Amino acid sequence: MMAYVALGIGLLSLLIAFFFAMYVRRQDEGKGKMVEISGYIRKGAMTFLNREYRYLTVYIIVVSVFLYLLSFIKNGGVSPYTWMAFVVGAIFSALSGNIGMRIATLANVRAAKAVEKDMHSGLKVAFSSGAVMGLTVVGLGLFGVSSMYLLFSHLGPYELSNILFGFGFGASSIALFARVGGGIYTKAADVGADLVGKIEAGIPEDDPRNPAVIADNVGDNVGDVAGMGADLFESYVDSIISAIAIGVLFSAINSALVYLPLLLAAIGIISSFIGVGVVVLMRNKDPSKAMNTGVITSAVIMVLLSLMIMYWNGDYKFESLNKVVPWYNMFIALLGGLIAGIVIGFSTEYYTSDKYKPTKDIAKASTTGAATNLITGMSIGMLSTVIPVLSISVAIIIAYILADLYGIAIAAVGMLSTLGMTLSMDTYGPVADNAAGIAEMANLGKDVRERAEELDAVGNTTAAIGKGFAIGSAALTALALFATYNQTLSGLGHKIIIDLANPSVMVGIFIGALMPFLFSALALLAVGHAAENMVEEVRRQFREIPGIMEGKARPEYEKCIDISTRAAIKKMILPTLLAIIVPIIVGVTPGLGPEAVGGLLAGSIASGFLLAIYMANAGGAWDNAKKFIEKGNFGGKGSDAHKAAVVGDTVGDPLKDTAGPSLNILIKLMSIVSLLLAPLFVLILSL
Amino acid sequence: MMAYVALGIGLLSLLIAFFFAMYVRRQDEGKGKMVEISGYIRKGAMTFLNREYRYLTVYIIVVSVFLYLLSFIKNGGVSPYTWMAFVVGAIFSALSGNIGMRIATLANVRAAKAVEKDMHSGLKVAFSSGAVMGLTVVGLGLFGVSSMYLLFSHLGPYELSNILFGFGFGASSIALFARVGGGIYTKAADVGADLVGKIEAGIPEDDPRNPAVIADNVGDNVGDVAGMGADLFESYVDSIISAIAIGVLFSAINSALVYLPLLLAAIGIISSFIGVGVVVLMRNKDPSKAMNTGVITSAVIMVLLSLMIMYWNGDYKFESLNKVVPWYNMFIALLGGLIAGIVIGFSTEYYTSDKYKPTKDIAKASTTGAATNLITGMSIGMLSTVIPVLSISVAIIIAYILADLYGIAIAAVGMLSTLGMTLSMDTYGPVADNAAGIAEMANLGKDVRERAEELDAVGNTTAAIGKGFAIGSAALTALALFATYNQTLSGLGHKIIIDLANPSVMVGIFIGALMPFLFSALALLAVGHAAENMVEEVRRQFREIPGIMEGKARPEYEKCIDISTRAAIKKMILPTLLAIIVPIIVGVTPGLGPEAVGGLLAGSIASGFLLAIYMANAGGAWDNAKKFIEKGNFGGKGSDAHKAAVVGDTVGDPLKDTAGPSLNILIKLMSIVSLLLAPLFVLILSL
Repeated sequence: MMAYVALGIGLLSLLIAFFFAMYVRRQDEGKGKMVEISGYIRKGAMTFLNREYRYLTVYIIVVSVFLYLLSFIKNGGVSPYTWMAFVVGAIFSALSGNIGMRIATLANVRAAKAVEKDMHSGLKVAFSSGAVMGLTVVGLGLFGVSSMYLLFSHLGPYELSNILFGFGFGASSIALFARVGGGIYTKAADVGADLVGKIEAGIPEDDPRNPAVIADNVGDNVGDVAGMGADLFESYVDSIISAIAIGVLFSAINSALVYLPLLLAAIGIISSFIGVGVVVLMRNKDPSKAMNTGVITSAVIMVLLSLMIMYWNGDYKFESLNKVVPWYNMFIALLGGLIAGIVIGFSTEYYTSDKYKPTKDIAKASTTGAATNLITGMSIGMLSTVIPVLSISVAIIIAYILADLYGIAIAAVGMLSTLGMTLSMDTYGPVADNAAGIAEMANLGKDVRERAEELDAVGNTTAAIGKGFAIGSAALTALALFATYNQTLSGLGHKIIIDLANPSVMVGIFIGALMPFLFSALALLAVGHAAENMVEEVRRQFREIPGIMEGKARPEYEKCIDISTRAAIKKMILPTLLAIIVPIIVGVTPGLGPEAVGGLLAGSIASGFLLAIYMANAGGAWDNAKKFIEKGNFGGKGSDAHKAAVVGDTVGDPLKDTAGPSLNILIKLMSIVSLLLAPLFVLILSL
Repeated sequence: MMAYVALGIGLLSLLIAFFFAMYVRRQDEGKGKMVEISGYIRKGAMTFLNREYRYLTVYIIVVSVFLYLLSFIKNGGVSPYTWMAFVVGAIFSALSGNIGMRIATLANVRAAKAVEKDMHSGLKVAFSSGAVMGLTVVGLGLFGVSSMYLLFSHLGPYELSNILFGFGFGASSIALFARVGGGIYTKAADVGADLVGKIEAGIPEDDPRNPAVIADNVGDNVGDVAGMGADLFESYVDSIISAIAIGVLFSAINSALVYLPLLLAAIGIISSFIGVGVVVLMRNKDPSKAMNTGVITSAVIMVLLSLMIMYWNGDYKFESLNKVVPWYNMFIALLGGLIAGIVIGFSTEYYTSDKYKPTKDIAKASTTGAATNLITGMSIGMLSTVIPVLSISVAIIIAYILADLYGIAIAAVGMLSTLGMTLSMDTYGPVADNAAGIAEMANLGKDVRERAEELDAVGNTTAAIGKGFAIGSAALTALALFATYNQTLSGLGHKIIIDLANPSVMVGIFIGALMPFLFSALALLAVGHAAENMVEEVRRQFREIPGIMEGKARPEYEKCIDISTRAAIKKMILPTLLAIIVPIIVGVTPGLGPEAVGGLLAGSIASGFLLAIYMANAGGAWDNAKKFIEKGNFGGKGSDAHKAAVVGDTVGDPLKDTAGPSLNILIKLMSIVSLLLAPLFVLILSL
């Protein structure tokens, strides 16, 4: 029954997303230059996605054949239906990004037009397109998982889990491709545009004379919208899957432990509906306040509803552990996850907003040059890892004490439950950013551009908090998957203990901790190379196209778009494949095996979490330190301090928008691959 | 018997070091400006050490009282003699740095004078002072450990181990203070001097008009000489201690397993004598070739001697495991450690020398600005972690398969056995650097300065390789200590398994992985702040002292020295105490405890190793990319590319010379604290 309810609410969410999409589509898109520019952006974005899909199709076919073949191995644990679940997960993940991005590229110009009227109209359009994304992601997620459950639960606990892992694997791997590809695309364009435009030619951001400017705006869509959509789709799905998988192992396939995550996700979606409604309907003039109210409303409703649900459900039987967990224990575990998420969000705000000391310190350090700006930014980024690590640690210890490993998974579900609302807010950011860019490029009136800028500024703050939240939830989800891995191993009958005293586990930890470094290096190198090409291309156009600087000749935007597209597609492949292949290699290598894979996951989660926070916060702080100086502090725009701060910001860009967010997916993808193949590793070990 | 032999060879090493010291002291120190400048440097260095010692004395007294009190806890495992061993270890560690630095500050001016005659004379003086350091460190190390063994072996295996851990604890904690303090000192001065001198005022490096120049030269001594001496003293000592401790647990107190590490260390010292002799006596004109021949000679002799010793010793009985390990297994484990060290050294060379692609890529990226220089440098630093991690992984897996956990400790001993030679070479670097500085500042003839520069250049390459070696040996030693921790826990009778499926172990890993980030953040912030103060002071002097730029007025060097000294002393305390207190907190907190400490160590070793390599190699590559441009590539000195590369170099400086090397000690110190208190953690758990 519960699974049908979840299925229904998932569909309802998609329906509401559809209405928001219709609403956005109906708005006036303006005319003339606005339409022209937004047309370039949409075309560039779609070209990228189409090319990306060609590669993804090959990938999906190869992997599903591989999974199909694996299902013939006796006792290998891979179900003959896993490959199908993989395909569906992959398609849903791609759809999440695709739908969100289609609407975002329609909404940017419409928001720019709407802001001509007033602030709230602009907000409404931009936020509505965010809501399409938010509600699509959770709708597809819950619909997908509950239909998998309904279709395959009759096959028994192990096969069901394996099929669900297949679904998660599909979602995670597409997400990683999308995040890495989108991240390389956007930052190659952004860094390239800034280096020549702002630093060398001295023209402002979003100036249509800059040949890389359209690529930069396309990048916001393919990176921050499509990439983020796929990313959070998989976090969301994986957290539910791991709770179900542990629930199945601890109890039975139709137990309350299995229904609980579906139910929590469903009420989370309902809370998100209300939060989204508050933002859209409340005629608040301050967009920042409107969104905060929405987020708080949905969180409060979520807490109240889950308290009711838990109370109503009563205590939980963990049959395989022979213990009963009181309902309030479960509620506290959930609450712990939510609170950890909020604390991480605030910590992100503290370390990256120019209202507080850290970012001001970076701005001050800029007065002694780029080097001190960078050293201070790096230190603050590293320092900012302390609170998130401690929050997550406390949350998982509490959850574990109160409700064993299942509690950890529920904490992750709790943290992600109101994703429909928070993701709407996150997606608002790049749409507002694009709207401001279009207003600038189309040369709309001064006050229109100012209002658009203000919309954009709100987006920057929400983006920082959203990023913190995404990292926290990724870590918690990865830990839940890791707990599932351990539980799955012990459920396989063989007594496998991932004992740290065994050096192969330590080697696993080493290699696991290495992965985020290697992965980030590849992503950053890709951005660096593509940005260099971009710089050379922009310099060439400035040199060779007469009249470009006077605004008389149209720059060759396509060439820049092409550079970003090719770099992104080409360079997304290796890092993603590494994430899939390394756990397999470690799992099947004699002397390593399933225990070493346990170490691999633990090492990658710890190191990936730390690097991701470091990169996101250092990048955010550099960005806002620069903006703080631009507001007139320490000499203001054009001063030496400002030049130093621009260097810091440019370095931070690929950290916070390419490498950092991809690490969130990396650690989950490695976990889910290992989960899927755990029985196989054990089988090989026993040969 | 064997222990007496080791004791004797330790003393012999000290005696030879004494003769080298006498030799250095006898050389002509020149006259006039040279003597004046080197006097400033020596005075500054001694002032720093004396102030540092005041704090260290307080620290030593507090901790030894604490250890003494702990020894009253029944079954707490802390011996009533541990506090004494702690004091001796601490004093020996301080002595290692102190003696090395005294000679280095005598040798710099004498090397500058000697190079007036010819290249080889300069090399001989500089290298002889390096040999004083190298042979003092290994001499004190082996003498210390073997006398502890002789004094306390009658107390039985557990108490002996605990006393040895106390000795290691003393050595490690002083080393960490020295590394962090010295690192902050040297980089605050260096960054400050460069930022104003090179970038703003446009005067060359080592220009006596720069008020921070003496502080910079003092920094080379307190950071690169005294800091490194204490660092490698503790690596050396800890590797021997962990082999003895595991040997005691696997066999008996008088067994071959206990004598083997002492014996290997002893023949390592003999090999080092020969290597050092080769460098000093071979009248090779190319100093780089001379040193390489020395290193290779001592390594080959070490391998041959240990092969003989192993063969002569015969097979090893691991009584507690009920197995016999053939002698060649043990030899291969040792060889594995040595080879891993060499591979890491070469990998460092590849990633940081301007002969190879990575550094050239950074230089090329500088042509598009500081931001791309930094992004490329960061990526290459991250990429450079792959080979070291895999080398260490292979070495420990092989060692473990062939000779169980004891094999890992022996691999570490093998890697460090020829430390007498490699450290002589490492110490040569800063002495040559100082000599070149003095030649520049004292305005010696053009060809003298060129020869001094060449001596210095050799030092830079050897320093990079030495750093790689130091990191590798630190990781291996930390892993050996970690193995000892696991073995100690299981030897305590309680069946404690550090099972990764237990979330408190995972929390331990999280906090452990966090520590190097937190630690680095504190160290970098200290450098950043002190450098800012330094910049302001230098700017003030340029502004307020008339005639300073014309070289007519003497800058107020002392003020700059004072800024560095105060910053270093003040900021070394918190990070070091964290390293000691965090394992204790984790060990005694309910819900965490000894298993979580196991996770803590594993997490800190993995993350510390990775960050240390990243920092060392990124820093080294940035440095050499700048030098590569200065050789005339990509526009040469003064070009925009060069300015960008200077930013990268300045950022890299505190990474490679402050934070990075300190991490080596951090991970060992945390391990040894945990080892020392492991029985106490278990006792608290059982309450």
